Amino acid sequence: MKNYSHNPLTNEKCEIPSVPDDAVAMDKFISLNEGKPIVVVQGLGFVGAVMSLVCANSIKEEYAVIGVDLADEETYWKIKSINDGQFPLIADDPKIPEFFESSKDKGNFYATYDENAYSFADYIIVDINLDVQKSSSVDNALTSFDVDLTGFKKAISVIGQNCKENVTVLVETTVPPGTCLNVVQPILQEELTKRGLPQHLINIGHSYERVMPGPEYIDSIRCYPRVYSGIDDKSAQAVQAFLETIIDTSSCELTRLEHTNASEMAKVLENAYRATNIAFAVEWSRFAEEAGVDLYEIVNAIRVRKTHSNLMYPNIGVGGYCLTKDPLLASWARKSFFGADSKLEMSVNSVSINDQMPVYAYHRLLQVFGSVKGADVAFFGVSYRGDVGDTRFTPVESMVNLVQSGGAQIKLHDPFVSYWSELSCRVESEVDKALVPQPDIIIISTAHSSYKSEAFVDEILSAPASKVFDAVGLFSNEQIQKLKSRHAVSVLGRGDIS
Amino acid sequence: MKNYSHNPLTNEKCEIPSVPDDAVAMDKFISLNEGKPIVVVQGLGFVGAVMSLVCANSIKEEYAVIGVDLADEETYWKIKSINDGQFPLIADDPKIPEFFESSKDKGNFYATYDENAYSFADYIIVDINLDVQKSSSVDNALTSFDVDLTGFKKAISVIGQNCKENVTVLVETTVPPGTCLNVVQPILQEELTKRGLPQHLINIGHSYERVMPGPEYIDSIRCYPRVYSGIDDKSAQAVQAFLETIIDTSSCELTRLEHTNASEMAKVLENAYRATNIAFAVEWSRFAEEAGVDLYEIVNAIRVRKTHSNLMYPNIGVGGYCLTKDPLLASWARKSFFGADSKLEMSVNSVSINDQMPVYAYHRLLQVFGSVKGADVAFFGVSYRGDVGDTRFTPVESMVNLVQSGGAQIKLHDPFVSYWSELSCRVESEVDKALVPQPDIIIISTAHSSYKSEAFVDEILSAPASKVFDAVGLFSNEQIQKLKSRHAVSVLGRGDIS
Repeated sequence: MKNYSHNPLTNEKCEIPSVPDDAVAMDKFISLNEGKPIVVVQGLGFVGAVMSLVCANSIKEEYAVIGVDLADEETYWKIKSINDGQFPLIADDPKIPEFFESSKDKGNFYATYDENAYSFADYIIVDINLDVQKSSSVDNALTSFDVDLTGFKKAISVIGQNCKENVTVLVETTVPPGTCLNVVQPILQEELTKRGLPQHLINIGHSYERVMPGPEYIDSIRCYPRVYSGIDDKSAQAVQAFLETIIDTSSCELTRLEHTNASEMAKVLENAYRATNIAFAVEWSRFAEEAGVDLYEIVNAIRVRKTHSNLMYPNIGVGGYCLTKDPLLASWARKSFFGADSKLEMSVNSVSINDQMPVYAYHRLLQVFGSVKGADVAFFGVSYRGDVGDTRFTPVESMVNLVQSGGAQIKLHDPFVSYWSELSCRVESEVDKALVPQPDIIIISTAHSSYKSEAFVDEILSAPASKVFDAVGLFSNEQIQKLKSRHAVSVLGRGDIS
Repeated sequence: MKNYSHNPLTNEKCEIPSVPDDAVAMDKFISLNEGKPIVVVQGLGFVGAVMSLVCANSIKEEYAVIGVDLADEETYWKIKSINDGQFPLIADDPKIPEFFESSKDKGNFYATYDENAYSFADYIIVDINLDVQKSSSVDNALTSFDVDLTGFKKAISVIGQNCKENVTVLVETTVPPGTCLNVVQPILQEELTKRGLPQHLINIGHSYERVMPGPEYIDSIRCYPRVYSGIDDKSAQAVQAFLETIIDTSSCELTRLEHTNASEMAKVLENAYRATNIAFAVEWSRFAEEAGVDLYEIVNAIRVRKTHSNLMYPNIGVGGYCLTKDPLLASWARKSFFGADSKLEMSVNSVSINDQMPVYAYHRLLQVFGSVKGADVAFFGVSYRGDVGDTRFTPVESMVNLVQSGGAQIKLHDPFVSYWSELSCRVESEVDKALVPQPDIIIISTAHSSYKSEAFVDEILSAPASKVFDAVGLFSNEQIQKLKSRHAVSVLGRGDIS
């Protein structure tokens, strides 16, 4: 293990402290914030970091917020960055710098790796990752998967080893349904018992955000309906009282579910539904291509019905942290916690179908334009979602790998990503640079707004004649006609009737 | 074959004419309606009969409408009933009698079995059935299916043998995508050629209604957005001009799709999507029961999101004519018309999952309340849908069969069905009669509004203590509490946490 952590935003090397003791600085922070209730957020990732800001900028309460993460190679730089005055996450929501500046002014947000932080907490919010280990075939079909709770359990143990006996622990991590009851509660009770503390004073609850990285990052946490629950009525009440101080309940509702099993299930069901709706569009995209019709046109005609307004368009694939695994967490829980014989077949199949989407897209590319061997291929978009710089589990990765394996040289462009950490490669920010060398094939792989502009279409048009493959249904009919004056154009999910 | 057709509404036996000649009456109808464009509707079923009324009551054109169906045992009574002045379909839409009376006053609606009717037609609307032959396992899982186009092809041939060379043929039947191009057009052209008529004057198009039997039956045809297409531009224009005279385009839009393949696909995709969304809820119902939580509560909490507003509740099953077969028509077409290797796996699986829903419901009943052997079981609701008297493919049928096979005596109630033709048995209309003999188990099997009333709950409450199984999530939490004062109550998709 290296003894430093690399900050990708500043390119700085941060030396990792050798002893996990941050007592001096933490005591100073606590005394400066005397009298304020203390919120400790466990995990400074895409949710935890922003949740910390939301708590530090509560409308109804003056909290002191401590963000805790590990002093390791991958994470330590975030802790240092926050304490150095730079927020460790780039997003185009102007509220993020605004909230961070405000917390700096108030001096009520501190980050640490010292587990002793939990001992000060009135509220602990669990925002760590819980991953699924997937195995796949060469075609990306899911062959098996497993959930390893070791890391999660350890994180909960650390809380139990340090927390006050009457703390409120709010799990926000997406967990297999049943986790609060079967994992969190027994671990915390065991640790409290070891410390000679009573078990009945602690509050344990679950709630989930519906965070959406992008221009409304903060509001997607603060002004969006939220579901919560507690392991008992006392816990549910404590969670509700806390959420009412950080969620803008004038603009959105809090819904209490009867049990943590229920709210944990709601989260994964919600994402499994989305994954299933996406998977549904996959086979119809193939059918539309075969039947020579335009699935976008068909979907638009059907979406006029309210019951069908969420019908999905053809697409290169599904990315991000949630839809690619949440249905699996649920299926795992069904067997492991509740002893069911069956998995959640349809939901699991949807993940597998969606994992294969980039493979389908690649096969369609070959079918329409022939082999890519020796070709120069330019990808526009590496992020998994339009107008966001987030490459976690992006489907573009699989497609890039396939195109490279097919013998092509690739070039990447994305206005929101300059360095693609998963592939360790550079990404162009200027369109004209991505068009050198002159590409034989241009692939539109993320639906960024800037690609929809006439300026972008004109830039593509000005390039020498090539093949354009729109894998995300980005271009309008008019733009496609315009492009066809110079290029061969094909759109995923859109056949050409002969 | 019998020489009469039984009218289930009047209990009358109608003698079937021995010669398929209705020339005298038809000529009289034509001369009385001289000068009016003539619409012939092929098929007088749930869509064709009502579509005939809509055409006969066009806002913008004075049509003479002839409904054509077969002079056979099953259908002839409808023809006679219409000409005798009684509409052959009971629905609680007041516009149906109103429109029928108005057509009688105008004398512009006639029904016949005489194929010569097509020779008068300016417009022919194809509204016949096209069924799927399904094979299933003992647990109702779909094992195979096929589509037999023989009857459909014959019906199109009859049109071609009789029609004018410049008629507009509008297919409204739900067909495998590709049917207009691969079946309808070649047959009509062949028949015209045989008759020495030109092929290029005929117009062929496709459009689909989104009819919903119930209190807004007529408006679900007349005031609902509609998709249409033609095999060529001339055909599409002719179809559009016709639809604009019968659809209230001030309240809803007509959308032209580029090709008949596209609008045929839109119809089956639309229903496959619905079937898939229903199937999705099935496995989560089981999971909710296992995890001891209430899936209705969870669905309500998620439905606040616009992208999830069509998430379905647990249910006894899917019925009706469309969702149980349309995805299969699509999958069949994909292989048979377009040579694909794959079927539409997810859509086909959804049909299979939905077909098994009554079996799941039965197993849950046994799990919660034990064996039904020797029990008296009262079913409330036999229709496949609330507030409608329609037993076609109702899931209640499977559940009734299972409960009977389990050794129970059954009693049936439905406010909208007095005789269940598929099972050839009587259905009670009075709640108190369905409660004699005193049932050991009460099953709520259709979500009729009247069952949601306090009066109904009180009637159930007044019955001697028994077991109540709500298989459609009908009762409110308050009503369940009330019922629990006297009965054991279980709701499908709702576990009881221990």
